[in-house]
Amino acid sequence: MNQHPAIDDVRTVACIGAGTIGGGWAGYFLARGYRVKVWDPAADAGVRLAQLIDAAWPALAELDMLDGADKEAWSVHTDLAEAVDGVDFVQESAPEDLALKRRLFADLDAVCAPGVVIGSSTSGYSMTEMAVDVAGHPERFVVGHPFNPPYLIPLVEVVGGDRTAAAAVAWAADFYTRIGKSVIHMDREVPGFIANRLQEALWREALHMVENGEATVEQIDRSITDGPGLRWPFQGPMLTFHLAGGPGGMGHMLDHFGPSLKSPWTRLTAPELTRELRDAVVAGCEEATGKHTIADLVAERDAGIVALRRLTAGLRAATPVPQP
Amino acid sequence: MNQHPAIDDVRTVACIGAGTIGGGWAGYFLARGYRVKVWDPAADAGVRLAQLIDAAWPALAELDMLDGADKEAWSVHTDLAEAVDGVDFVQESAPEDLALKRRLFADLDAVCAPGVVIGSSTSGYSMTEMAVDVAGHPERFVVGHPFNPPYLIPLVEVVGGDRTAAAAVAWAADFYTRIGKSVIHMDREVPGFIANRLQEALWREALHMVENGEATVEQIDRSITDGPGLRWPFQGPMLTFHLAGGPGGMGHMLDHFGPSLKSPWTRLTAPELTRELRDAVVAGCEEATGKHTIADLVAERDAGIVALRRLTAGLRAATPVPQP
Repeated sequence: MNQHPAIDDVRTVACIGAGTIGGGWAGYFLARGYRVKVWDPAADAGVRLAQLIDAAWPALAELDMLDGADKEAWSVHTDLAEAVDGVDFVQESAPEDLALKRRLFADLDAVCAPGVVIGSSTSGYSMTEMAVDVAGHPERFVVGHPFNPPYLIPLVEVVGGDRTAAAAVAWAADFYTRIGKSVIHMDREVPGFIANRLQEALWREALHMVENGEATVEQIDRSITDGPGLRWPFQGPMLTFHLAGGPGGMGHMLDHFGPSLKSPWTRLTAPELTRELRDAVVAGCEEATGKHTIADLVAERDAGIVALRRLTAGLRAATPVPQP
Repeated sequence: MNQHPAIDDVRTVACIGAGTIGGGWAGYFLARGYRVKVWDPAADAGVRLAQLIDAAWPALAELDMLDGADKEAWSVHTDLAEAVDGVDFVQESAPEDLALKRRLFADLDAVCAPGVVIGSSTSGYSMTEMAVDVAGHPERFVVGHPFNPPYLIPLVEVVGGDRTAAAAVAWAADFYTRIGKSVIHMDREVPGFIANRLQEALWREALHMVENGEATVEQIDRSITDGPGLRWPFQGPMLTFHLAGGPGGMGHMLDHFGPSLKSPWTRLTAPELTRELRDAVVAGCEEATGKHTIADLVAERDAGIVALRRLTAGLRAATPVPQP
């Protein structure tokens, strides 16, 4: 077992790939005060990265995220060994191509010091399938899946593969948390992780609706932006339905509206609403809301929606997107 | 063909049912300056409605929606004919029970003046199946499906049944638009309409994940609130993927990531990505964004996320929900 650096001692991070995701990570690490070494074989990688950092910096300043940051503390390398030399963590954001990732991971393993954890931004592959050719230290390869843009969206989904050590997954979760990310530490590999599975289910239903002439692209987007999308930044889909149950919360919702799960409301069939599933969902809602009563949650929801509507009205006035 | 009142001449609205949805509608109509007559057989309907209006009023004031509103301009009735006497529009929000709705719609038809349009808040039934027992004027029955809370969420989905007149659907769409709603005028009945189908696909996938131990309730909610939920109030799911394609937009996204639709990322199988479907989605995105370049949209997205994160941080500090 190789020692990982103490989280406090991390000074330098390598970003493998400087596209939209890798470059976004580089900007974020810089903002959080780290030195960033970027590996990217493209001739214009440095120019593109400078543009991306310039674009991200004002947003990060507005979020008070630039304490101790040096905007110039980055370098671009075309040699992989040089890029990872002396770094304390590696974030890989190469193109989504399984063969490419497999070769790259074997190469990374050969050049990175053994205790260095390597996080992958993959949005679709499991670490088990990506790390098959890693000969030396497969135990330090972890998925750390961000959302676009990585410098603004807090979510990072963290999960290991079948040869990843639990300590490396825990280290990555701690590191991402330390730098201000909202970490979901998954205990098993699930295709699409969590958020992508959920948004992809919605997206697939939307594509079916376009395919069948049931809704236009504009109607689909507006049905979310002017509907449930106004609740979800504050209260996720589970809490939303917890409130839909009235004072009885999720328990009442499932007991009374559960039968509607049989309705053909989407092309995805719902699971059987067993007593166990019902109780798990209810318990999860109660745990998530703690001492907040349904009345508290309703007041918080309303305050959130009011603030959000004022915000979106202001933003739309500033940059109008044509409405039909 | 019976003449509908001119939108400008609407003065009084009947709300049938004063539960969470019906009461929320009543508060909204009041705020927009209408007199509201409420029919509800419950003995405590008036007390509950007064509480609901009290709770909604400050939010509506913050949204500058109280011009000319009289908070006391409502009455509760237990006699249906009395409740709809002299009204210019009816919003029905009775419990989701098909037999009940069928009886109620027949009764409403018998007591409402012929030109009065009757909108239903149903979240699941089609007007075709609800209006089967309407003998006199089925042509004025329209679905006007709101989102909870109806006084804050702008979306209303409007669609008729097989005996509804196009003029009545258009009248309802005009009226809801006039009172400040974001109206989606659907040209056909689809189970779950649009927004419910989309959020229900996400919800069903979430239930499957809980059922299989793949994610907890807390992880599901946080994967949305701290992830894609931070984009959706500004840019819906279609525009989100339009931006995920980089400078090439949705066309590039579908051409390059289309194959991932075959991945088992959700339990819902995607449609075949035909040339027609690809082109329809791309054209819809281009139409929705008009002269806004991808770079404009990226800047708008970032400004929106920054503002939204500042907002949610403030709201969470004010009313902390326990985190794991």
